[in-house]
Amino acid sequence: MTGATPRTAGRHFLQIPGPSNVPDAVLRAMARPTIDHRGPEFAAMTRRILDRLRTVLRTSRPVLLFPSSGTGAWEAALVNTLSPGDRVLAFETGQFAALWRDVAARLGLEVVWIEGDWRHGIDPATVEATLAGDARRTIKAVLAVHNETSTGITSRVAAIRRAIDAAGHPALLMVDTISSLGSLDYHHEAWGVDVTIGCSQKGLMLPPGLGLNAVSDRALAASRSARLPRSYWDWTPVLEANERGFFPYTPPTNLLYGLDAALDLLLDEGLERVFARHRRLAEATRRAVAGWTLELCPLDPEEYSHSLTAVWMPDGHDADALRRVILDRFDLSLGTGLGKVKGRVFRIGHLGDLNDLMLAGTLCGVEMGLALAGVPHAAGGVGAALDYLRSSTGVPAR
Amino acid sequence: MTGATPRTAGRHFLQIPGPSNVPDAVLRAMARPTIDHRGPEFAAMTRRILDRLRTVLRTSRPVLLFPSSGTGAWEAALVNTLSPGDRVLAFETGQFAALWRDVAARLGLEVVWIEGDWRHGIDPATVEATLAGDARRTIKAVLAVHNETSTGITSRVAAIRRAIDAAGHPALLMVDTISSLGSLDYHHEAWGVDVTIGCSQKGLMLPPGLGLNAVSDRALAASRSARLPRSYWDWTPVLEANERGFFPYTPPTNLLYGLDAALDLLLDEGLERVFARHRRLAEATRRAVAGWTLELCPLDPEEYSHSLTAVWMPDGHDADALRRVILDRFDLSLGTGLGKVKGRVFRIGHLGDLNDLMLAGTLCGVEMGLALAGVPHAAGGVGAALDYLRSSTGVPAR
Amino acid sequence: MTGATPRTAGRHFLQIPGPSNVPDAVLRAMARPTIDHRGPEFAAMTRRILDRLRTVLRTSRPVLLFPSSGTGAWEAALVNTLSPGDRVLAFETGQFAALWRDVAARLGLEVVWIEGDWRHGIDPATVEATLAGDARRTIKAVLAVHNETSTGITSRVAAIRRAIDAAGHPALLMVDTISSLGSLDYHHEAWGVDVTIGCSQKGLMLPPGLGLNAVSDRALAASRSARLPRSYWDWTPVLEANERGFFPYTPPTNLLYGLDAALDLLLDEGLERVFARHRRLAEATRRAVAGWTLELCPLDPEEYSHSLTAVWMPDGHDADALRRVILDRFDLSLGTGLGKVKGRVFRIGHLGDLNDLMLAGTLCGVEMGLALAGVPHAAGGVGAALDYLRSSTGVPAR
Amino acid sequence: MTGATPRTAGRHFLQIPGPSNVPDAVLRAMARPTIDHRGPEFAAMTRRILDRLRTVLRTSRPVLLFPSSGTGAWEAALVNTLSPGDRVLAFETGQFAALWRDVAARLGLEVVWIEGDWRHGIDPATVEATLAGDARRTIKAVLAVHNETSTGITSRVAAIRRAIDAAGHPALLMVDTISSLGSLDYHHEAWGVDVTIGCSQKGLMLPPGLGLNAVSDRALAASRSARLPRSYWDWTPVLEANERGFFPYTPPTNLLYGLDAALDLLLDEGLERVFARHRRLAEATRRAVAGWTLELCPLDPEEYSHSLTAVWMPDGHDADALRRVILDRFDLSLGTGLGKVKGRVFRIGHLGDLNDLMLAGTLCGVEMGLALAGVPHAAGGVGAALDYLRSSTGVPAR
Repeated sequence: MTGATPRTAGRHFLQIPGPSNVPDAVLRAMARPTIDHRGPEFAAMTRRILDRLRTVLRTSRPVLLFPSSGTGAWEAALVNTLSPGDRVLAFETGQFAALWRDVAARLGLEVVWIEGDWRHGIDPATVEATLAGDARRTIKAVLAVHNETSTGITSRVAAIRRAIDAAGHPALLMVDTISSLGSLDYHHEAWGVDVTIGCSQKGLMLPPGLGLNAVSDRALAASRSARLPRSYWDWTPVLEANERGFFPYTPPTNLLYGLDAALDLLLDEGLERVFARHRRLAEATRRAVAGWTLELCPLDPEEYSHSLTAVWMPDGHDADALRRVILDRFDLSLGTGLGKVKGRVFRIGHLGDLNDLMLAGTLCGVEMGLALAGVPHAAGGVGAALDYLRSSTGVPAR
Repeated sequence: MTGATPRTAGRHFLQIPGPSNVPDAVLRAMARPTIDHRGPEFAAMTRRILDRLRTVLRTSRPVLLFPSSGTGAWEAALVNTLSPGDRVLAFETGQFAALWRDVAARLGLEVVWIEGDWRHGIDPATVEATLAGDARRTIKAVLAVHNETSTGITSRVAAIRRAIDAAGHPALLMVDTISSLGSLDYHHEAWGVDVTIGCSQKGLMLPPGLGLNAVSDRALAASRSARLPRSYWDWTPVLEANERGFFPYTPPTNLLYGLDAALDLLLDEGLERVFARHRRLAEATRRAVAGWTLELCPLDPEEYSHSLTAVWMPDGHDADALRRVILDRFDLSLGTGLGKVKGRVFRIGHLGDLNDLMLAGTLCGVEMGLALAGVPHAAGGVGAALDYLRSSTGVPAR
Repeated sequence: MTGATPRTAGRHFLQIPGPSNVPDAVLRAMARPTIDHRGPEFAAMTRRILDRLRTVLRTSRPVLLFPSSGTGAWEAALVNTLSPGDRVLAFETGQFAALWRDVAARLGLEVVWIEGDWRHGIDPATVEATLAGDARRTIKAVLAVHNETSTGITSRVAAIRRAIDAAGHPALLMVDTISSLGSLDYHHEAWGVDVTIGCSQKGLMLPPGLGLNAVSDRALAASRSARLPRSYWDWTPVLEANERGFFPYTPPTNLLYGLDAALDLLLDEGLERVFARHRRLAEATRRAVAGWTLELCPLDPEEYSHSLTAVWMPDGHDADALRRVILDRFDLSLGTGLGKVKGRVFRIGHLGDLNDLMLAGTLCGVEMGLALAGVPHAAGGVGAALDYLRSSTGVPAR
Repeated sequence: MTGATPRTAGRHFLQIPGPSNVPDAVLRAMARPTIDHRGPEFAAMTRRILDRLRTVLRTSRPVLLFPSSGTGAWEAALVNTLSPGDRVLAFETGQFAALWRDVAARLGLEVVWIEGDWRHGIDPATVEATLAGDARRTIKAVLAVHNETSTGITSRVAAIRRAIDAAGHPALLMVDTISSLGSLDYHHEAWGVDVTIGCSQKGLMLPPGLGLNAVSDRALAASRSARLPRSYWDWTPVLEANERGFFPYTPPTNLLYGLDAALDLLLDEGLERVFARHRRLAEATRRAVAGWTLELCPLDPEEYSHSLTAVWMPDGHDADALRRVILDRFDLSLGTGLGKVKGRVFRIGHLGDLNDLMLAGTLCGVEMGLALAGVPHAAGGVGAALDYLRSSTGVPAR
C-alpha cells in the first residue's frame, strides 16, 4: 500500500480557475434528450436564456452565444468590428491578455502593446495618455481583460472608459470577462463597454463550450463597415435568427440546457448575493495567504480579484512542484502559473459554485501541501481564513 | 379535452436528420463532473478519442476537434488551406452545399459554382471536365458534400477523387461528411480526401457542439502557405497540443465525455454492422415511401442516402403542413424542406442510435399523418417496410 | 455478421407490463445527491408527495409508502389489519391473486379461495353470495386485484363494494392496484376501499422500490386490534412520522425524488387525460389483436384492461417461443405468461409513459414476430391499430 | 442581505452518518433506463453483484438483498431463524441496538436486555457469563450491533463469537453492520457470524433502499424450523430465484445499478485501502476533537469507530443548537444525538465516499460552529487534524 490517498475515493477538488465547479443540477440538466433546435420548445428556451443573460450582463442590448471556447468569443469581437490593418491598443496584464493580442495579430491587426509586469492591472492614465497621443485616431479598439485569470488581477473597467472619454477618442472598448462574468460585479451598459467577451465555464457554472459577446449599438454600427473576413462569427445572422429564438447553424442544445439551469441558480441566489459571496470567499483566501506569510501576485489591493487568487512563491521554490504534491496527496487541482509566471505562482479559484467549507477544504489542502513540499511558510493560513469566515457573514468592505 | 395526444406523455420521436437520437449512455456520460483539462486523466481521454476517431474515419493521419458546430468545421477546412481570392469548385447538390459555398464566398474565396437540380449528387464527369478545363490550375480545392442532408443524396466521393486525378489536377478534395460520418461507409485515406469535415450531432450520436477536420499530408502542406487569416481554427497549435493530449484553448470537456462514450458504442457494435444497420433501415424507409406511392427526392438509386430519406410531396401539397400535423398529433419531429425544396420535401432521419421498431414507429406516424393531412397516398407503406424488416436481417444488396 | 439486429443500437423497447417505461425526467431526478432525510428540505418533499398521492388515489385519508416491492405492500395491508387465523376471501383471477393468497396463507391467515378460469374478473354476485353465506362473519377481509397483471383483466371494484354492502357484511375491502394505479381511473374513497395496495414501477412511472398503502378509517380502526406480528410494516409509526414529513426508518430518498418528479408529470398532464390516453392505447392494441385474428385472454369486454393486454396464443403455439424471437430480432421485451397461462399468453404493456408511436412500434414488432415464429395470424393488426389511432383522438366509448 | 451563506451556492456537505456521500458515478448509474428484471442482462448483473458482495462480506455463503431499509434486514434476520416466544440476548449499546430490540419484541420474541451506558460496546465477558448462565439454552440468538451509529462505538465481534463458544452455547450470532459494512474490516465467515445485517446507504455508498442479509449454514438450517410468520422476508424463495439471477418479486433495478457501480468503486480501490482510508480519516477526526479539548462519546479507545465519531458536548451546551448553527451558516448536516444522548452528542460521519479535504472542510465547519455557538473549546482541532493528515499517509497503528 502506498502512502497516497486513493484517487478513487471522494470528490476531486477542482479549484483551478478554469472550468469551475459545475453544480450537479447543471450537469443533470445537460443529460436531457436533445430536442429539435428548430422547434417551439427550443425557441422558448433561447429567448429565456438571452433575456436572463442580459440581466447578468446588465445590458439592454443584444447578447450573442457561439458554440466555441472563450477564445472564439475574442475572435468574434475582433472580426465583427475591425478591418485588416486596424490598430488596437492592448495591455500586458498577463497570459490571457497576451493570448488575445496574439489572436488580433494573427487576424491581421496591428497591436499597440503596452508592456506590464503581470502584477498590476491596466493603468487608466496610460490608456488616456496613449489615446490622447493617437492624434489621427488610428487606434480603433481598446482591448481590456477585466479579470486576468493568470494573475488574479482585476482591472477597473469604468475607469478605463472614463480615460477613453477623457481623451475624446472614438476607439471601441472591448472587455474580456471570461473569469469575472457571473462572479464579479459588471455593467456592460453603464460602463460603456462596446463588446463584452465571456464564456460558459467559469462564473456561469457550466462546462466549457459556449462563447459569448454582448454588444453596444456602436459595436453593431462598426460591424456594418468592418472588413475582416467573417462567417462563423458573424453577428448579423445570429441576431436575425435569435429574433425568432433560433440560431443560424446548429446550436449546442445540451450546453444551452445547462445554461438555462445555471441561470436559474444564479438568479435565484441573486446577483448581489453571488457577488458578495465571492468577495467574502476571496477575502478569506487572501487572509489565508497572509497567514502563510506568502505574497499575492497582485501588488495593488485595489486590483485584487474576487474570483481567483494567484499566490507568489518564495524565491527558489517551484509552484508546479507544490501543485504536484497537492494533487497527488489530496486530489486537489490548483491552477498552474502560465507564461511569464510559470513556476512562480499557483492559483486558487474561488469562483462559481463554491461555499465556505469547499473553500476551507481547499485551503487545508494548500496548507498541508506547503509543508509537504518544503515551502517556507507559517501554518496560520487556515486559521486566519476560518476566523474571517466565522466572523463575517455579509459583504466585505470593498 | 382536445384531440391531440398529450405532449407530456411518452418519448418525443425526434426523427429530424439534425441532432439524431442520442443514446442515454452518452447523455449520462455528459453529466460527469468536469475535470481539469490540463491534467493526466484528460490527456488520456483525448488520446483515446483521437485514436478511435481515426478508426472511424479510416485514416492514419490527424483528426482535429473544435468546439464548434459543423459550420465551423467548414470554415476551418477553408482557412487552413486557402488564400484570399483562391478559386474553389463547388456543386449545388442542396442546401448545405449552398451554405458552404456562402461561407467560402464570405471568407473571400471565389467559388466556381456548378448548378444542380437538388435531385442528383455530384457528377464525377463534370468534376473531371471542369478541372480539365482549368488549364492554369487556378482552382485550389473541390468542395464536395458526401451526403446532402437537405435531399438525402449521397455523392460518390471515390469517383470524384478519380475524376480529379483523371484531370491531372492538383486541387485539394474537401468533403463534408456531416450527415454521413459514423452512419455510412467512408474512407478518408483510401478515397484520397484532403480535408474531411464532420461534427458531433449525427452519426457520432452526440449533442451538437463539436466540429471535426481530418486532414491529409497534402492539406497540412497547404496549410503552411495558406494566407487566409486564421486563429481559432488554426490546425497547427491544435496538432501540437494534441500530441500531449491537450488543446490550445479550453476544450468542451463534457462533450468529449459524450464522444468517448459514443465511440465505445460505435466500436462495440462494429463499424461494418453500424453501416449495415443503416443501409437496412434506409431500405425499409424507401420501401415505405414506395408503398405510399410517393416519390423520393433523389432520382438516381445509386445516390440514395442510407442515413436519411427526403420524400417529395405530390404537387399542391405542402410538406410543412404535413409535418405540423404529425408533430401535433404524434410528437414526431420530421425534417423540414430547406431552401429551394421548402414545402416540397420532408425528411426522415434514420441515422445514429436507431433500431427497427423506432423506425417502424416513425413510419407509422408518417402514414397516419399523410391520411390526416389529406395527402394522396396508398396506405401500404408501413406494411412494405415491415415485410422488408421482417425478411431481411443482414446487409442489403448495395 | 449474424442476422440479428444489434442489441447495442437504438432504444430497447421495454413493453413488459412490469417496470414500465420510466420518463427520462424521472431517471434524472433520481440522480440528485441524497439529502438528509431528517432535514427540512426532505420534510417538504414528503408532504408534497403524500398530498399528491392522495389526489391520485382520490382519497382524503392517509397514504403510506414503504421501501419495498408491491409484494411488501400486500403484506403490509394484511399484517396491519388482521389476526392469526382470520379468514379472508380471495379470487383466482390470475397469478398475482394467487401470489397474494400465498402471502396471506404464509402469514397464518385462512383463505377462502374462489377458483377461476383466469379469463374473467371477480364476479360481484359471487362476492355477495359468499359473504351472505358467512353468517358468523368469520371472513374479515375481501382481497381483490383491481387489474390482474397476468391476464389483462380489470375487476369492477365499485360493484364488489356494493356486493359486500348488499350482503351487509363487515369485511374490509382490500384492493391491489399495482398495475392500475396512475393508469386507470380509481377511487379509493368513493368506492369504499379499506386498503389500497400499490407500488412505484407501473403507472407511477418509477423504477421499482416503493410500496404503497392507502387506508380508510375502518382499516385504521382495525389496525388497533389486529394481532399479526408487525414491525417493519406497522402503519402507526409511519403515520406519526409522516405528520412531520419524516419516516420511522431511513426512506429511499432517491426513489422519492423520482416519485416527486413523476407526480409532476402525471398531474401536469392531468389524471383524466392520462386515463383517456391509456384507454385509447388499449383500444388500439385490441384492434391490432383482432386484426391478427388472435384472441384476447379476457373473455368479457367489460373487463378488458386498459393498462395491458394479454393475448391468447393459438393452440399448439408457444408464447415464449414467440417472445424469444421478438426479443432477439427486435429488442422488444414482451411480458411472459405466468403460472397457469405459461406459454399460452404473451402480454403487451401499455401503461405508464407511452404514446401513440411507441405503441405503434411495439405492435409492429409483434406483427413481424408472429410471422417469423410461424404463428397463424392475419397481417392486419398494425393497420387496424393505425386506423384507430388516426381516427380517434379523445376518450373512447367506455 | 442576511448573514447566512446562501444555501444555493456550493455543495451541501452531508456528513451525517446516515446516507453518506454517494459518488456521482453511482448516482449516474441509477439513471439508466430500467431493464426487464426477468431478462438475461438482469440475471448477469444479479450474479455479478452477489458474487462481489460475498467478497465484501468475506463469506462463501449466500448474501441476500431486499427492497427495504436496514430495519427490514433486521426483521428478515429474526423472522427467518426464530419462533414465537424465542429468547434473544441483546445489549444496550445505543439507539440502534434499542430499536432492534423493539423490532424483536414487536415480533413476539422475548429479549434478554443487558443495559449499558451508551459509551461502551458489548462486553464479551458479559456475553459469556449470560450464556453460561442460560443452562437450558433458551436463548436462541445473540444480537450484536457491530458499529453503533448513534455513539460511534465498535463492538468486537470476533471476541463475542469466542465468548459464545467459550460458553458452549448454541445461540446464533446476528450482527448489524449497517454503519460498518464497506467501511470497517469485517469477516462474516471467519468471525463465525450466522446472520449479518446490512444496507445500501452507508459504506456501500448508495442511496437508501436495499437491505442485506448474509447467512451461515447454521442460520439456513435454523430457517427450516423457524416458525415466526414470514413471507416478504423469507430467505428460501430469494435463494432459489437468485440461483438463476432473479428475485421472487420485483427487485429495485435502479438501486441495483447503483450497487453494481458502487462495488466497482470499492473493489477498484481495494477493500484494504478503503478500510485504511477510513481508519486514517477517523483518527484525524479524533485528533480534531482532542484539539478542541472536547470528549468523545466512546470511553474505550479499543472501541472507537472508524466510520463515524460521536462528540460529547460540554455540560450545559446543547448539541442540536450547535448543529443548527452549523447547518444554517455552513450548509453542513451533522448527525443529531439520538435517544438517550439527544442533545448530548453530535456525530461526524467519515464513512463512504470521503477524502482528506472533504473531511477537512467538515472539521472547519465544526470548529467555526463551536465558536459561533459559544461552546467552550480550544481552536486547535483543525490544526491537529491537518498535522495528522499531512504526516500520515497509510494505515494508522490500529
